[in-house]
Amino acid sequence: MQNFVLQNPTTIIFGTDTVPGIGRETAALGRKVLLVYGQGSIRKNGIYDQVVSSLLGAGLDIVEHGGVQPNPLLSHVRAGIARARENGIEAVVAVGGGSVIDSAKAIAAGAMADHDVWQFFKGKKSIKRVLPITCVLTLAAAGSEMNGGMVITNEQTSHKFGTGSRLLNPRVSILDPTLTYTVPANYTAYGAVDAVAHILEFYFTTRDPATPVQDRFMEGLVINIMESCEKVLQQPRDYQGRADLMWSATLALNGWTAAGLGMVGFPMHMIEHSLSALYNIAHGAGLSVIMPAWMRYQAGLHPAKFSQFGQRVFGLTGSPAQCTREGIELLRSWFVRVNSPVTLAELGIEAEDNPLIADNALALAKIWRLKNYDKEIIMQILQGCR
Amino acid sequence: MQNFVLQNPTTIIFGTDTVPGIGRETAALGRKVLLVYGQGSIRKNGIYDQVVSSLLGAGLDIVEHGGVQPNPLLSHVRAGIARARENGIEAVVAVGGGSVIDSAKAIAAGAMADHDVWQFFKGKKSIKRVLPITCVLTLAAAGSEMNGGMVITNEQTSHKFGTGSRLLNPRVSILDPTLTYTVPANYTAYGAVDAVAHILEFYFTTRDPATPVQDRFMEGLVINIMESCEKVLQQPRDYQGRADLMWSATLALNGWTAAGLGMVGFPMHMIEHSLSALYNIAHGAGLSVIMPAWMRYQAGLHPAKFSQFGQRVFGLTGSPAQCTREGIELLRSWFVRVNSPVTLAELGIEAEDNPLIADNALALAKIWRLKNYDKEIIMQILQGCR
Repeated sequence: MQNFVLQNPTTIIFGTDTVPGIGRETAALGRKVLLVYGQGSIRKNGIYDQVVSSLLGAGLDIVEHGGVQPNPLLSHVRAGIARARENGIEAVVAVGGGSVIDSAKAIAAGAMADHDVWQFFKGKKSIKRVLPITCVLTLAAAGSEMNGGMVITNEQTSHKFGTGSRLLNPRVSILDPTLTYTVPANYTAYGAVDAVAHILEFYFTTRDPATPVQDRFMEGLVINIMESCEKVLQQPRDYQGRADLMWSATLALNGWTAAGLGMVGFPMHMIEHSLSALYNIAHGAGLSVIMPAWMRYQAGLHPAKFSQFGQRVFGLTGSPAQCTREGIELLRSWFVRVNSPVTLAELGIEAEDNPLIADNALALAKIWRLKNYDKEIIMQILQGCR
Repeated sequence: MQNFVLQNPTTIIFGTDTVPGIGRETAALGRKVLLVYGQGSIRKNGIYDQVVSSLLGAGLDIVEHGGVQPNPLLSHVRAGIARARENGIEAVVAVGGGSVIDSAKAIAAGAMADHDVWQFFKGKKSIKRVLPITCVLTLAAAGSEMNGGMVITNEQTSHKFGTGSRLLNPRVSILDPTLTYTVPANYTAYGAVDAVAHILEFYFTTRDPATPVQDRFMEGLVINIMESCEKVLQQPRDYQGRADLMWSATLALNGWTAAGLGMVGFPMHMIEHSLSALYNIAHGAGLSVIMPAWMRYQAGLHPAKFSQFGQRVFGLTGSPAQCTREGIELLRSWFVRVNSPVTLAELGIEAEDNPLIADNALALAKIWRLKNYDKEIIMQILQGCR
């Protein structure tokens, strides 16, 4: 186990009928709030009304900033920062999934900075002050509700970059699994794939061979995410399934599994971000394409962890090489079973685009210090996604 | 999964060479500090010197309050409260295991109260203000370093009661596994038993049949605690083993596993507290005696979870009844293997004392609202400890 510092200040309020708490929780942080949300689905399913009624009931002034898109855009973040400044915003309320929460974080950081917000993402500036954030989660996927990370797409440069700060942890996140009852099957699956990817990035990139506590925690989460995802695809209003999936997705990226792993990388996300930046595909759909190919590549370099994965997650019992090979194949089969794509062709991306994708990914590899990845290796992994 | 609120404000600084950070971390909270520690082992092994040098280096004024005993005593806590008040103490630094940290918490709460500290433990008063606490952990066992709980023995009434508050979470806890290299074999094992008991109290007393995320997390922890304990009993200076055991013991009772379980009880602790209050035995030693008997009792009432325990923790494959029976027996055998006692006779406690023990335990059963436990049931469990 490696040395670590662990601090997660986010308060989680989890369960049914918790949304009406958002007003009270936010009122403790500021009176003028920016309400950030997405494309309007929360207006249809009643969540918007619940949140606004709670915020107004707590005596808060609301400035709206809806319209966040999947793969959220820098231009929309910049508009939100301008709006926050114009209105003297004191707190940001995010109602949505990872895209909305990440936009809220970028606004919260950008509004307090004396430079453009993209400087944070290019690694040129570090985050020193932010507006406080509260959150009502509507999608089990990104984990952004209990960490300080954020990912934004710069549509001018086609770069999807991620950065973060402990300051950006939401102060309070409300997780009501019933809010995800209406998430369609494809986005339910993509969310589960995203959560699995978060776990496996850590699991397979730690260089510490002795992290048994973290390993079993992560293996358990992968099993639970797969099981609960299958449950809710069968029965979208299965409360227990939605609750398990939601909490597991939060745990996948809230820092608890990573504590003690030392340096980890996000190579699958590094490559996938180029797919969603260039083709605006769903992040989870891109990940299920990249993951098996990356795992085959990585297993060639560091095989030991892969056989353990096959044994413990899928109960395999053959030779280490068999457990490795079959473990990766079984995960890929699971992606197929939940209708998440496993080839670039399914995403409509042609092989001739591989160099373009690799070049785009290299920009992020540099910022994220994934020094072992050059164009050739990324191309090789992309070729494995066919 | 049940609704829950989760908030754990403790910052964990984990790993080698972390003790010198105690001065800097404490200086952020106050200048006049009460240094609480135990029977002087920290003077022999150099930890005391390291801590004092760091505190002085950070410009802090130190008032000492050493001499905490295992099964820490109310009288010593009261003396600490008086000392804190006399000296205008602003923060409490605990250097030790659960007994020391719990004493520090009781002092931190009592010093800010306008009534006697025991009122908290009798459930007559709730904790509203506390002095901030920092901690250097020297024993993998109680989990007190990352929660708000505390257990104190009132030697006048022979009651060992526990209570707590989120306010009592240490602000910062420093966990350096090398500090536990010199913990003797018996206390290493008792610490592991205590951590296993914390997990199993939750695991077997939740009434929610659908807590898959928490179940796998807890099962993994039990396996890790057993494995790492055996490792360090073989080789006391095995860093990875000490680190795994230390972190697992913290995770066993920091609220992460319990989130979503709903109401849980501490019936094994309820009975054990009477053993350590009446006979001043080591808490872990008492728990390994009580645990198998309580598990047999509980398995008769709620069998389902017990077969899962046998299957997942010990890899059993027989009928549910077999997995239940053998799972309990295998855990008991593990206690024997690490030389933790499994009968009251080994503790020198006679069968004729059972009514006395049961009466003592009932006092705590009442405060902890363990309504299903009457004298007869406690006696029945005690009879199973032979």
